[in-house]
Amino acid sequence: MTLVRAGWPSPADFDAAPDSARLADWNEADRAARPARLERVRARFRDAGIDAYFGVKPEHMRYLTGFTLAEGEDRMAGNSGQFFIGGEEVIVLADSRYEIQARREATEARVEGVYHDLPARWSELVGSLGARRIGVEAGSVPYATWQRLATATPDVELVPIEGWVEADRAIKEPAEVERIAAGGAVADRALSTLLPEIRPGVTEAELALRLEWLMRTGGAEALSFDVTCLSGPEAALPHGSPGDRPVRDRAVLLFDFGAQVGGYRSDMTRTLFVGEPSSRDAEVYEIVARAQAAAIAMLDDALGSGAEPPSGRAVDELARGVVAATGREPFAHGLGHGIGLATHELPTLGRRAPATPLPSPTVFSVEPGVYIEGELGVRIEDLVLFDTSRSSVERLTRFPREMVIVG
Amino acid sequence: MTLVRAGWPSPADFDAAPDSARLADWNEADRAARPARLERVRARFRDAGIDAYFGVKPEHMRYLTGFTLAEGEDRMAGNSGQFFIGGEEVIVLADSRYEIQARREATEARVEGVYHDLPARWSELVGSLGARRIGVEAGSVPYATWQRLATATPDVELVPIEGWVEADRAIKEPAEVERIAAGGAVADRALSTLLPEIRPGVTEAELALRLEWLMRTGGAEALSFDVTCLSGPEAALPHGSPGDRPVRDRAVLLFDFGAQVGGYRSDMTRTLFVGEPSSRDAEVYEIVARAQAAAIAMLDDALGSGAEPPSGRAVDELARGVVAATGREPFAHGLGHGIGLATHELPTLGRRAPATPLPSPTVFSVEPGVYIEGELGVRIEDLVLFDTSRSSVERLTRFPREMVIVG
Repeated sequence: MTLVRAGWPSPADFDAAPDSARLADWNEADRAARPARLERVRARFRDAGIDAYFGVKPEHMRYLTGFTLAEGEDRMAGNSGQFFIGGEEVIVLADSRYEIQARREATEARVEGVYHDLPARWSELVGSLGARRIGVEAGSVPYATWQRLATATPDVELVPIEGWVEADRAIKEPAEVERIAAGGAVADRALSTLLPEIRPGVTEAELALRLEWLMRTGGAEALSFDVTCLSGPEAALPHGSPGDRPVRDRAVLLFDFGAQVGGYRSDMTRTLFVGEPSSRDAEVYEIVARAQAAAIAMLDDALGSGAEPPSGRAVDELARGVVAATGREPFAHGLGHGIGLATHELPTLGRRAPATPLPSPTVFSVEPGVYIEGELGVRIEDLVLFDTSRSSVERLTRFPREMVIVG
Repeated sequence: MTLVRAGWPSPADFDAAPDSARLADWNEADRAARPARLERVRARFRDAGIDAYFGVKPEHMRYLTGFTLAEGEDRMAGNSGQFFIGGEEVIVLADSRYEIQARREATEARVEGVYHDLPARWSELVGSLGARRIGVEAGSVPYATWQRLATATPDVELVPIEGWVEADRAIKEPAEVERIAAGGAVADRALSTLLPEIRPGVTEAELALRLEWLMRTGGAEALSFDVTCLSGPEAALPHGSPGDRPVRDRAVLLFDFGAQVGGYRSDMTRTLFVGEPSSRDAEVYEIVARAQAAAIAMLDDALGSGAEPPSGRAVDELARGVVAATGREPFAHGLGHGIGLATHELPTLGRRAPATPLPSPTVFSVEPGVYIEGELGVRIEDLVLFDTSRSSVERLTRFPREMVIVG
């Protein structure tokens, strides 16, 4: 089995960046999907014994109301974008800086001005929805805020809610999958453009910035996260930052990166070889590639057999076993994670993942790795669309998985 | 009073980007300052009746332990970087992805592996510090997490703590001020480089990306936040995103942006004119410039008189009054905010700011604005170092404040 690829992929192999009409279509698809998304939340009201829901997670804002904050912007936005879902109505909070934006984006919501004084406004807002028991995102609302809200309305019960919208978001609408794939194509194209520029001596930080620039000028509205570019032994850090270390001949070069398009994110990892790999390095690469292929084959087999989908825990265990059977130490991180409006979301593929069948249709990463401290690390990461109704396991990451030699 | 500047500032007018020796010096200064920072936290233990402190805010991680996460990375890092301060010892948590990094960066801490199972490890970790009452960052730890930690150790009391480290961080060490100033110089230089490239027809998004690139290749390790570039009536949005709108002749062009250097952030706003301003637009600009100058003069006067420093509320009120006296509507946002490891931190200058004297030495923005909806917006923002012991109010933003005409 030869894994070395003859020749490089070309940027033209991958889909072009979406134009503004496509972006507008996706916005329209979100708008059309929002009533059903809200109804899924409301459908849980009776079981939980609540009559309204208070949300603060930035991904939930966008998913349920349309209001959009950039990564990290919520730390400076006060209560802006935080929202209530009542039985019939949605309220979006905005301070003066965000009021016009909230009206533009959250077109179906009532926008209420709140400037760092939510506890003072809480009673009136909850009252306007007629709520007596309100579900609150307990995994995101800080303890101190919770206490202040509870004190503001002693006659209203706050009910801790976790995971509702996260579970809904794990199941992807077609227009969501399209955007993740579009982000993937932006990333695929950027890396293929970078290949001829990689030479021994160039630094990790230079390559990371160049790859970022190729994505940002190639259709990405933002990065999914800071580009990881690690050379040689540094690649054994399952998570590391690019430094001033020059790329060396006959060393691996690991890129972990992704592009955001229309709010949705991609994520991929490729481990390239600078010059011909040693037989040991090639062997490690092949183990990782086999572990990934085995995980995807397991998903495929489950669809063909008509059996229920495997759990994220079972897929992780299988891939880990492929590595362990070779005598190499399997990856300490999880095999994969869901992706969408957030880089890491449900479902989880890992040792602590639930033993229940994977949801569908859903998108997640499959990213096994082998790390030999002080020597090298190899990881290969693709995004996969898993869809039982179409009996399909589709790789959204199109960049080839065979060994690519650069330099 | 003519506010129009003859000629443009040149990139050479501003400090060059720091070299790696300078960055290493700042790291060393942090290392040397950390014992005193930890002691300031411990000094509060007795009053609060606690014997340990549990922190989760990314800025606090870096300030107190050295462990560094990129913006937004904490959402994917699990418990990595969260920390305990005991009477004698510091513990930093890290999952397998972050363990090596934690050992490199948090050199004085005991690193403990925790992989998404903090409640299961809580009792043992708290016990290893001998803690019976532990202060917990209640403004950041989610309600659900708090409940799980409380359940894990029914015999250990969790005491809600807010604002301790925030108050300490408001007072800046010399090496912190140097980095904010260095970030400011990177931003100053980037904008001065951009000036000749601004022409009617180029879009806001193109200019924003170009300005970002100039900062990222000119010494910024990251942006302080996404670049704001708003043209004409869009500039009336006190907060808006750059779009595909082309820059028009005889319209304002507002840039709000900042660069991060050595972990510390800068923040500045300039409102440029594309072609000669109308007399109305020039008048609005002058009002904003006068409001800013009056605020800074008030700080200066307080130092000269030996009186105690004014409060953030009083400075805001004065600047707001200068605008109101002209018949224009004053800015709805606050006059300013502290800055450092976070873009927005203490002290606050605004209508809801405390009526107590400003801390010293401290760095904050002074950013009055006038916004006429549907027509134009003007904001001028500088960072100021306020230092009573040196009797000095120093602008760290060096880009000229006079009207600059481009296009």
